[in-house]
Amino acid sequence: MTERPTLTATPNNVGVDAAVAAARRVIAALLHAGDGSTAEMTDVAARLTEVAEHLEEHAPTCDERLVDMWAGEGVTRHDPVTGPENAVAPPLPLRGLPDGSIEGTVTLGLPYQGPPGCVHGGISALLLDHTLGVANHWAGDSGMTGTLAVRYHRPTPLFAELTVRGRQVSVDGRKIRTTGEIVANGEVCVSADGLFVNKHLPRPR
Amino acid sequence: MTERPTLTATPNNVGVDAAVAAARRVIAALLHAGDGSTAEMTDVAARLTEVAEHLEEHAPTCDERLVDMWAGEGVTRHDPVTGPENAVAPPLPLRGLPDGSIEGTVTLGLPYQGPPGCVHGGISALLLDHTLGVANHWAGDSGMTGTLAVRYHRPTPLFAELTVRGRQVSVDGRKIRTTGEIVANGEVCVSADGLFVNKHLPRPR
Repeated sequence: MTERPTLTATPNNVGVDAAVAAARRVIAALLHAGDGSTAEMTDVAARLTEVAEHLEEHAPTCDERLVDMWAGEGVTRHDPVTGPENAVAPPLPLRGLPDGSIEGTVTLGLPYQGPPGCVHGGISALLLDHTLGVANHWAGDSGMTGTLAVRYHRPTPLFAELTVRGRQVSVDGRKIRTTGEIVANGEVCVSADGLFVNKHLPRPR
Repeated sequence: MTERPTLTATPNNVGVDAAVAAARRVIAALLHAGDGSTAEMTDVAARLTEVAEHLEEHAPTCDERLVDMWAGEGVTRHDPVTGPENAVAPPLPLRGLPDGSIEGTVTLGLPYQGPPGCVHGGISALLLDHTLGVANHWAGDSGMTGTLAVRYHRPTPLFAELTVRGRQVSVDGRKIRTTGEIVANGEVCVSADGLFVNKHLPRPR
């Protein structure tokens, strides 16, 4: 048994995960390209629309898909932070540490920019909210976010390795307190304290 | 002069904006399709990789692009909330209201899912952080997020029209207090209070 188990879905290099990885590359490339020539972008739009139409034709209904998405007890594959099937997700892989905390590293590019050259404050909040939720799963008691307090200590750089950490602090009845931070170059850039409530929405079926 | 000016970049139906709109459709379609057949997804991955490689070949250097992105005084076109050039952004359009507050509506699909059928709590935090920042711009004094306190009142539904609102509450020296909420079906789902500090990072050049 590994001492640092992976708590998030590991991307496969085939199937939908490979297509999603390519979609992430398109998202970043569109931001790097900027306005380009109109003719070139019209061609890109046409090619992407063709892919979307092809996928849409073969997709199950949304209700069927939601049931399928939420079947089984494993980690989610579709969330916007760690999901290998979601091109919005960087994705951030998270591992459990022997001390009960969790940790992951990620490097963010232009799609996640807020201030010039820095990570958007709301993206930091997104990564931390999700990480605190996974930390609760790892600790045993989990639930939905009640409140999230995010503190911005210094700008979080793009194009630098970020370490994202989370750990459960206490469980008092249904109230769960969890904390975490984003660290770059050895300094805390953003920290968060969450109060979670031990309840879960029913799964679609 | 309009009484409700648009405070965010309006997507064009041509050029990079059209390509980005098509990329958003691909992101959603990949989530709706799910695992599909391996052969089909291998083909989709190849087609998307081809588009990415084409865009990457013609892109300026990242430093050049950052200078270009931040030139001029207008609204940003590249941020992950309102940006017509960023496929991560839903996008959320925001308008200024005569009372000094701002407002926008958006409907979110599978790429923004947290709990089953609901918006991810971190995505709500992302939308609110950005909206509070734009509300500050509209009010006149703006800056970077110092702290953001997000309160989750009830689940925020996917596939339903959400109204996102923000307004500046007070300015005390460099400290700016701003508040906002996300409303669905007439009920507040998420609210946020932000403390912003009136300083800005230098623009790349």
